Amino acid sequence: MTKQHMPPYLGVAYYPEDWPEEEMDFDIAKMQEAGINAARIAEFAWRKMEPEPGCYRFDWLHRVVDKLGEAGIAVVLGTPTATPPIWLTRMYPDVVMESEAGRRAQHGGRRHCCSNNPHYRAYSAKIVEAMAREFGKDPHVIGWQIDNEIYSFPMGCFCPECRQRFLAYLREKYGDIESLNAAWNLNLFSQAYDRFDDIPSPRDAWHNPHLRMEWIICQNLSHVEFVRMQAEILHRYVDVPVGTDTMPFNGMDYRSMTDALDIVQFNHYNTADNLHGCSLWFDYLRTLKERPFWNTETATNWNGSTDIGQTLKPEGFCRANSWLPIALGGEANMYWLWRTHWAGHELMHGSVLDTCGKPVHVFGEVQEVAEGYRRAADFLRETRVETPVAMHFTSLNWNMFATQSVVHHLDYMDALTQRFYQPIVDSGLRPDVIDARQELDGYRLIFSPLMMTLEEADLPRRMAQWVREGGIWVVGPLTDIRNAVGAKYRHKHFGMLEELTGVEWLYGIPDDAGRIQAQWADGSAFAGAQWYDIYGAENAMATVTAGHSALVGKAVAVCRPVGKGTVILLGTLPSREDMDRVIAQARELAGIAPTRLCGHIMAAPRKGTTRSGLILVEYAGEPASYTLDHPMEDVLAGGTVQGTLELEPFAVRVLEDPRK
Amino acid sequence: MTKQHMPPYLGVAYYPEDWPEEEMDFDIAKMQEAGINAARIAEFAWRKMEPEPGCYRFDWLHRVVDKLGEAGIAVVLGTPTATPPIWLTRMYPDVVMESEAGRRAQHGGRRHCCSNNPHYRAYSAKIVEAMAREFGKDPHVIGWQIDNEIYSFPMGCFCPECRQRFLAYLREKYGDIESLNAAWNLNLFSQAYDRFDDIPSPRDAWHNPHLRMEWIICQNLSHVEFVRMQAEILHRYVDVPVGTDTMPFNGMDYRSMTDALDIVQFNHYNTADNLHGCSLWFDYLRTLKERPFWNTETATNWNGSTDIGQTLKPEGFCRANSWLPIALGGEANMYWLWRTHWAGHELMHGSVLDTCGKPVHVFGEVQEVAEGYRRAADFLRETRVETPVAMHFTSLNWNMFATQSVVHHLDYMDALTQRFYQPIVDSGLRPDVIDARQELDGYRLIFSPLMMTLEEADLPRRMAQWVREGGIWVVGPLTDIRNAVGAKYRHKHFGMLEELTGVEWLYGIPDDAGRIQAQWADGSAFAGAQWYDIYGAENAMATVTAGHSALVGKAVAVCRPVGKGTVILLGTLPSREDMDRVIAQARELAGIAPTRLCGHIMAAPRKGTTRSGLILVEYAGEPASYTLDHPMEDVLAGGTVQGTLELEPFAVRVLEDPRK
Amino acid sequence: MTKQHMPPYLGVAYYPEDWPEEEMDFDIAKMQEAGINAARIAEFAWRKMEPEPGCYRFDWLHRVVDKLGEAGIAVVLGTPTATPPIWLTRMYPDVVMESEAGRRAQHGGRRHCCSNNPHYRAYSAKIVEAMAREFGKDPHVIGWQIDNEIYSFPMGCFCPECRQRFLAYLREKYGDIESLNAAWNLNLFSQAYDRFDDIPSPRDAWHNPHLRMEWIICQNLSHVEFVRMQAEILHRYVDVPVGTDTMPFNGMDYRSMTDALDIVQFNHYNTADNLHGCSLWFDYLRTLKERPFWNTETATNWNGSTDIGQTLKPEGFCRANSWLPIALGGEANMYWLWRTHWAGHELMHGSVLDTCGKPVHVFGEVQEVAEGYRRAADFLRETRVETPVAMHFTSLNWNMFATQSVVHHLDYMDALTQRFYQPIVDSGLRPDVIDARQELDGYRLIFSPLMMTLEEADLPRRMAQWVREGGIWVVGPLTDIRNAVGAKYRHKHFGMLEELTGVEWLYGIPDDAGRIQAQWADGSAFAGAQWYDIYGAENAMATVTAGHSALVGKAVAVCRPVGKGTVILLGTLPSREDMDRVIAQARELAGIAPTRLCGHIMAAPRKGTTRSGLILVEYAGEPASYTLDHPMEDVLAGGTVQGTLELEPFAVRVLEDPRK
Repeated sequence: MTKQHMPPYLGVAYYPEDWPEEEMDFDIAKMQEAGINAARIAEFAWRKMEPEPGCYRFDWLHRVVDKLGEAGIAVVLGTPTATPPIWLTRMYPDVVMESEAGRRAQHGGRRHCCSNNPHYRAYSAKIVEAMAREFGKDPHVIGWQIDNEIYSFPMGCFCPECRQRFLAYLREKYGDIESLNAAWNLNLFSQAYDRFDDIPSPRDAWHNPHLRMEWIICQNLSHVEFVRMQAEILHRYVDVPVGTDTMPFNGMDYRSMTDALDIVQFNHYNTADNLHGCSLWFDYLRTLKERPFWNTETATNWNGSTDIGQTLKPEGFCRANSWLPIALGGEANMYWLWRTHWAGHELMHGSVLDTCGKPVHVFGEVQEVAEGYRRAADFLRETRVETPVAMHFTSLNWNMFATQSVVHHLDYMDALTQRFYQPIVDSGLRPDVIDARQELDGYRLIFSPLMMTLEEADLPRRMAQWVREGGIWVVGPLTDIRNAVGAKYRHKHFGMLEELTGVEWLYGIPDDAGRIQAQWADGSAFAGAQWYDIYGAENAMATVTAGHSALVGKAVAVCRPVGKGTVILLGTLPSREDMDRVIAQARELAGIAPTRLCGHIMAAPRKGTTRSGLILVEYAGEPASYTLDHPMEDVLAGGTVQGTLELEPFAVRVLEDPRK
Repeated sequence: MTKQHMPPYLGVAYYPEDWPEEEMDFDIAKMQEAGINAARIAEFAWRKMEPEPGCYRFDWLHRVVDKLGEAGIAVVLGTPTATPPIWLTRMYPDVVMESEAGRRAQHGGRRHCCSNNPHYRAYSAKIVEAMAREFGKDPHVIGWQIDNEIYSFPMGCFCPECRQRFLAYLREKYGDIESLNAAWNLNLFSQAYDRFDDIPSPRDAWHNPHLRMEWIICQNLSHVEFVRMQAEILHRYVDVPVGTDTMPFNGMDYRSMTDALDIVQFNHYNTADNLHGCSLWFDYLRTLKERPFWNTETATNWNGSTDIGQTLKPEGFCRANSWLPIALGGEANMYWLWRTHWAGHELMHGSVLDTCGKPVHVFGEVQEVAEGYRRAADFLRETRVETPVAMHFTSLNWNMFATQSVVHHLDYMDALTQRFYQPIVDSGLRPDVIDARQELDGYRLIFSPLMMTLEEADLPRRMAQWVREGGIWVVGPLTDIRNAVGAKYRHKHFGMLEELTGVEWLYGIPDDAGRIQAQWADGSAFAGAQWYDIYGAENAMATVTAGHSALVGKAVAVCRPVGKGTVILLGTLPSREDMDRVIAQARELAGIAPTRLCGHIMAAPRKGTTRSGLILVEYAGEPASYTLDHPMEDVLAGGTVQGTLELEPFAVRVLEDPRK
Repeated sequence: MTKQHMPPYLGVAYYPEDWPEEEMDFDIAKMQEAGINAARIAEFAWRKMEPEPGCYRFDWLHRVVDKLGEAGIAVVLGTPTATPPIWLTRMYPDVVMESEAGRRAQHGGRRHCCSNNPHYRAYSAKIVEAMAREFGKDPHVIGWQIDNEIYSFPMGCFCPECRQRFLAYLREKYGDIESLNAAWNLNLFSQAYDRFDDIPSPRDAWHNPHLRMEWIICQNLSHVEFVRMQAEILHRYVDVPVGTDTMPFNGMDYRSMTDALDIVQFNHYNTADNLHGCSLWFDYLRTLKERPFWNTETATNWNGSTDIGQTLKPEGFCRANSWLPIALGGEANMYWLWRTHWAGHELMHGSVLDTCGKPVHVFGEVQEVAEGYRRAADFLRETRVETPVAMHFTSLNWNMFATQSVVHHLDYMDALTQRFYQPIVDSGLRPDVIDARQELDGYRLIFSPLMMTLEEADLPRRMAQWVREGGIWVVGPLTDIRNAVGAKYRHKHFGMLEELTGVEWLYGIPDDAGRIQAQWADGSAFAGAQWYDIYGAENAMATVTAGHSALVGKAVAVCRPVGKGTVILLGTLPSREDMDRVIAQARELAGIAPTRLCGHIMAAPRKGTTRSGLILVEYAGEPASYTLDHPMEDVLAGGTVQGTLELEPFAVRVLEDPRK
């Protein structure tokens, strides 16, 4: 990496292969005008690089990389395996996926190949190695992106290779067929299998949820393996970081996916209505690697394919959206795409340049963001987000909810985001969003809602120890109710919570009609939703109790000291107001001072070895305010600010603490 | 049947094969605590009974039956043919159904086999005979249940066996192809077939409604034959009653299904919102056999599969729901299920015990029901429901509406229940719900709405005779408008109604916009719905007339004396208020005294050779009242009641007439 | 054509093959009573005409034609190719279509054969030639109808023949594969094909919009060829006009379809809610041929298949609906159907006679229409609709919107009808609705909204010339933004509009939230919808400008003199009120005097060599009024009318100008 290609990066996806080469100078000049300093290229250009099998053409791509680099625009190179040329499909008709209905996909779109197919893997390895040899040491290339948005949705590929992979996965995990029958309770419905070869792919039947969950996990594993294969090749030739850009889809375990990678890359297309949703992901991504992550794709304005389903976003959205990943721990924000396609797919998507080369109407916001990045660059490079608060969010629980959601329409992601994450951030807390493997040291307060199973990475033991040593654990609802394959416990309702807290679970009850009639200890009404666990209130500190006839006086939420710490056991999904009250209680127990903010602000505390500060991003398009404890330097606008800051909609403040 | 296994039964579905055997004593003790005196077992346990072809294992099942029986819990044994083991599917891949899209089902759920498949039939016969030999004379077994919830929805299996069965069915019914072409009007669209072998299964085309109806009838017939085959085997070994538990689905003709059986068994999962819906079925089921029916499945509280789509039911629901089948002529109510599954399918379903062995929160209601059954046992065994009122409801009309519903969204079941059945029962009448074969003697008032065809069991002649001899017949709308295959009459609109009444049919008109503007003879407004038959009012006693320009003064409802009886001809589906008025008129004509009730009560008059009385069940969860003509003994609470009884929501009263 | 078979025709679809022959005299007598003077027959009667391959039976059909003709009822003969007999499907199982899911259709409905299949074509040719030989000179046959409602929806047939036809079409159109790759921008996603044989049918992938559009065009072309083949045969034997009755579906290019035909035939089933919708089609159909078109199918009252989804239509609807095609340039209106089928498909459809032979309740309206046609016959035959106003509507743009709709839910037909056509007609203008090939001479005002591409029939050059010579062109939104294959222009936003007007395009923006905040020059609010093109306002006469921050003062609509003419450039879809204002401005520029009407009237100016006049049809079922400039003779009611005419709902006035 040469001096001029330093983060933070404001980047774009650029598709020179789709345009006459003589357009390149114009495009690069416009990128400079916009303040762009990074470009992602080549991710779909397999055919242009390998028009016939084994016949590689990189001259055109060298010209692109060189011109960009010389213009001060760093390059991220994509491996093009999401879009194999027609000759591969023609040579090996089985490289494409088979649908649940038994039909093979066809050439024509993207991500239509099966990650388990040996021919697809072999030809993918060849083009990746060819690219790596060619550009592995290029000084303008600051990183690599493997494939693009690889994941299985909803159930993936049903080809024979995938079924064999699945059977091998089950054999390895369960050992013998009787263990599998036992783990899945296959005496039920006479489902038990005599041998692994009996087990079907999960289609054409009302299948068992355990079978379905394992299938999804195995499908995603095949993508992890496919990415790992590419990473191993790249690592032989390349010194800059290698990643893969995925989506806000946690069915694929992001931790497993990035274990073999150097950097986390991520694409999102959140809109003004759900901008807190991408922040949850940023709070998660930064925990996966030491190195700051890259937000590799987002829209300047609207999303669109052959047509647009969105309205233009409000003024300032592009600014807030571009700053969020940077504030929350990333070092790159890249727009998809630079210039709208002139034909084919996705030609109505928001961009920086319109197809005909004119700047889009938010071009000014892009320039403003670029200028801001430059001003804050040193502060950003020398500080990191640090926080004593965490919230759990795991791929295993995502897949468990996807295959058995306990109550209809209980979507793990939505419920976690709306019911827990947003109240937490709006209280001014900055949670790390963590998976099961994340170390717990350093956290004083952890939220673990909707963790159907804790049985991953020794979490039951580790959480118990952490609580006993003083942690404040807000746990539930619907946490610790299943083992690692999604089965219930047979002699107790929870895996460890009753034992840990001494609180007795009595009933589990669906209620969305308010029949439970819960209330706080002071008599004020408490509103939960969808599901209620009911606890015996005898040796518990019941903070919320039920009012339904047979349940009067039983607890819906309890607060129990455990060792030096405390467990707040939540039986339901609280309303916004009631969750605010739970958070306030937990925060006080954890000794975390309250933040004085009004409205909707992502507040990111930053700390480095020599500097510290705070970044604020108003994310809801409404006026907000934040009260500082002491004067701060305004990195973007200059000068010193103090007291209560009024933030206009989508405002961004980068504030450095002048006290060393 | 030993002395201690006497009805009424409060039972549960119990799946010992899904649990460690050492749990059994605990479960049985808890059943006794709940007051359970019957258990349905083994219905899905084929593989445990026959782990390999021809290798039978019944020792475990004997232990279950013995332990239950010795604990005073009678056993209902299910044949396990709904869930064949994997070895059957592996040996004969064609035993499973073929979908409309041409895909074979897979092992993994239940009811995925084709009732026409010879291999499936053969192996089903073998396991049934093995069970029957083994348990045919067991003193604790009080009855058998064949298969489980067998029916075709929506169009069943499309395998080659099914098509051949269909062609054979058509050959037998129509004789030669020209008769079929003529009956179905196949000159239309040049559809006519040259030979039976030309006729396709009803997929991949915009098919003729007659073809589609015959297909559905034939599919259901294959299940009737499959059940009959099992019944014949069981009857060779078994003395206790044999039945099959089906669902509230009248596409399968329940009369044909139970002709070869000894007892009617029935599963329902109605909720607090539609409890009157299951009562319609109970009023129907009791007419099928002398022997009281068994309600083999219902939920204590909520339904659920891998997730729950319901909210807990209001207090008292379990009581009312458990009493309804008993009040209306059954002798058993059984909960599905005893203890919630710990893994696999349906592990969020309501139960009596939670998975971990704790009683669910309505356990107290279950115990109260058990106690009530015990107190009322003699009264229940010695009395039967008796009533002079009936309402028609037939499988043939169900299937005719399913394949040609006259107007969009006119659902036979819904319209019959909401528009006719509920007003009838809320007026205090207790209708027998009868099919076409039911004898008419003894009824003074019969409602026949939505009977598209009367051409079954000689009904046109029999109804005419019954009316002429003094019956009061409320007939229409949409009754008598098709012949037995669903074709219209070509020279008259009705099959027999014009001839019977002398009233002229003029027009048939869809209207849901109130354009018809109907009114009663006294000028008050009349609201119908969806469809209007318009009659000449000249020689009719028009009770309701139309107001639309071309139709002013034409009749929408008429009341015509016929012989000693009267026909009330209804042209539309009246509003609730207007139907109440029709019922009051009909009741007066029939000489049936009005009942003084307020609210929503199922009132079941009971009569035996020496005793009589009345059972009241409040079914809507609202306060209600019922005024007695003379004092009655309260069988459950003890003492004597008289005058106006106030019923709390979901209240149950069993009242015996002290006058002998 | 004999003297008695003169237009205008009030006709019916009659299916004697579905009834006993002895019913024919009754039906014909009733037709005479109704005033019917034309009948369409035989369209689905292939099997009755050719019960076995090559064995023709026409005696029965001669008896029908003769009896009808002798009763004064002219005959339109249909070729029966929509419904081949089962023997054809049995002999050649590949004659039926293959679905997107890969399943072959089955015998049983209609229009299930593939127009590209050689066997289907061969046997179709034979039956058509046999019919033509037999009835080619029959004096009672006034016209022929080829097939019935032939078109592809949504994507047609996927059989191997169709794929080969598609590849041949692409080869012919694009010449070599690199041209196709270039035109469709197939470097994108490495989609490019090495050879034509690589190109798949558009299923089983996220396909390119250009591929999808060409497929749809090619599918429809196969129907055009199939119809043309039949027309060539008929023209060898027949002197009367030959047509084919199609539907309000412009994916099939009506111009190409009717090039080889003599008359335009058309079926519609519009209801009281959307009667203006069929008028748009009539305004289009009359431009295709000199000879007045035939409205071959419409409902007397409601539509229905095996069930009815409609409510009866208001009084007078049948009158207005029956007069609209006549007023707007047709010479026939025919009801589907004469007498409701007695069994099979579609037996709940509105008709003139009910199944059992009774007149339906609007029989009186039918008789009134027949009488009106007779009174106005000479006036109708001797005048034609003439107008200086036109609106564009093309098949190519229909298919382009269908495959890339720019914004979600922007339906070309709906938007064109609601946003443009209805305001135009409600202003009293009578537009010719024209395709790209239509001559422009004679028009003073042309509307071209939603013409994504102008690149057809040399339209850019012709429109520019027409404007420069004095035309008033209201153009946009979303017009001129794509080339003929649906690709964007790469160096300019519009194909020709910027060059023609000198107005600069700046931005294209989706907005349905009112964020654009547009207003008229006088400051009053302007409401657009869905999409906004924003123009530089500098050298334009901006009539509407935007108010969104970055866009303040930029233009949304401009009015620019060009040569002797004017271009009104519309950037969005105006609200009704705002479109009225645009129309008023355009009309004034075009020198067309305003019409004084209130309400919803289709006003059709008629002109002949010696006579002229005006037909008014109230089409919304509401009171309306129209003010005459001078006294007129009322052709239907007799007498002279003048001043302001009050029209009752669905009123019809045929007015002749007494001034010669």
